Amino acid sequence: MPLEIERKFLVRDDRWRDGATSERYCQGYLSKGKATVRVRRAGDRAYLTVKGEPDGISRPEYEYEIPVDHAQSMLHALCDGPLIEKTRHEIRHDGLLWQVDEFAGANSGLIVAEVELSHPDQAISLPEWIGEEVTDDPRYYNSALATNPMGSEAERSA
Amino acid sequence: MPLEIERKFLVRDDRWRDGATSERYCQGYLSKGKATVRVRRAGDRAYLTVKGEPDGISRPEYEYEIPVDHAQSMLHALCDGPLIEKTRHEIRHDGLLWQVDEFAGANSGLIVAEVELSHPDQAISLPEWIGEEVTDDPRYYNSALATNPMGSEAERSA
Repeated sequence: MPLEIERKFLVRDDRWRDGATSERYCQGYLSKGKATVRVRRAGDRAYLTVKGEPDGISRPEYEYEIPVDHAQSMLHALCDGPLIEKTRHEIRHDGLLWQVDEFAGANSGLIVAEVELSHPDQAISLPEWIGEEVTDDPRYYNSALATNPMGSEAERSA
Repeated sequence: MPLEIERKFLVRDDRWRDGATSERYCQGYLSKGKATVRVRRAGDRAYLTVKGEPDGISRPEYEYEIPVDHAQSMLHALCDGPLIEKTRHEIRHDGLLWQVDEFAGANSGLIVAEVELSHPDQAISLPEWIGEEVTDDPRYYNSALATNPMGSEAERSA
C-alpha cells in the first residue's frame, strides 16, 4: 500500500523564497469521507489522488496522472465547494525537498510548508524559516481549507 | 468531457449465455455523492472510475487503469459498505456489445444487461432475451446495489 508520510509547518518569514521553483496549482475534492479523492491541476499536468485516513503522520495515498482536460472538467463540474488555488514553491534543504504552499483566493495570506519523509520517525533538520508544526491540525488539511478557508485568520496572525 | 451513454434492461431468460465471454468483477465505491468514484477489479486488470450525475441516459465518465494491488487495498481499506461481486458476460448482437452482469453475494439472483451507445437517440435492435428496461431506475445503479442489494427481490420475481 503506497503511503504518504508528511510533516507540515507554518513559516516564520519569507527567507524560503530564495532559490524556490514555483508552479500554480488548482485542486478540488470529489469526496472528503473515509477516502479523500482529489483532482489537481499542476501547471500543464494533472492528477487524480485517493488518500485514506491519517495514522499519525502517515496515510495511504494513490496518485495517477490524468489528462489535463479531464481534470479541468472534473474541477468545474464535479468538485464540491470552492476550489483551492495556490502556488507551490519547492526548496531543497539538507537533502530534503520542502514544498511551500502559498494560498490564493479564500485562503489568501496562508503559507504552509510540507516535507515528505521516507519513514515516520525520520530525523530532519528544520530550515531557519520554519515556524510552528501543524501536522496534526486538521484545519490545515487542504480538503478542510476548501470548505473552511483560513485566509483572514492567517492575515490576523501575520 | 467523456460521456457514458448507456441503456439497461432486465433479462427474460438464459439465451444470452450462448457464446458469451465472461470475467469476474469486484468493485466498491470511494464516493457516492455528486461524483461517484468507483474502484473495480476486472480479472487481472483494475480501474479507477469517476462518474458524474446522469442526464437522461448519459453521464460524464472518466476511467483510468490502475495497478491491481492498488485496487485491492482500496477495495478492502477505503470503500464504503459491501463490495459488489459479479460476473460480466459479453455478447455481440447486431453490431453492438451487450454486457450482462450476473450478480453474486447480497445481489445473487439479479441479472442486468447493459449496452453502451454512441449517442443518446441511437436506434438499437433488442436481443430476444431482453426484458424490461430499467435505465431510469436508480435502484439498479451499481452504487445503489452496494448499499441496498436486490438479491431477494430478484429471486421473488424470477
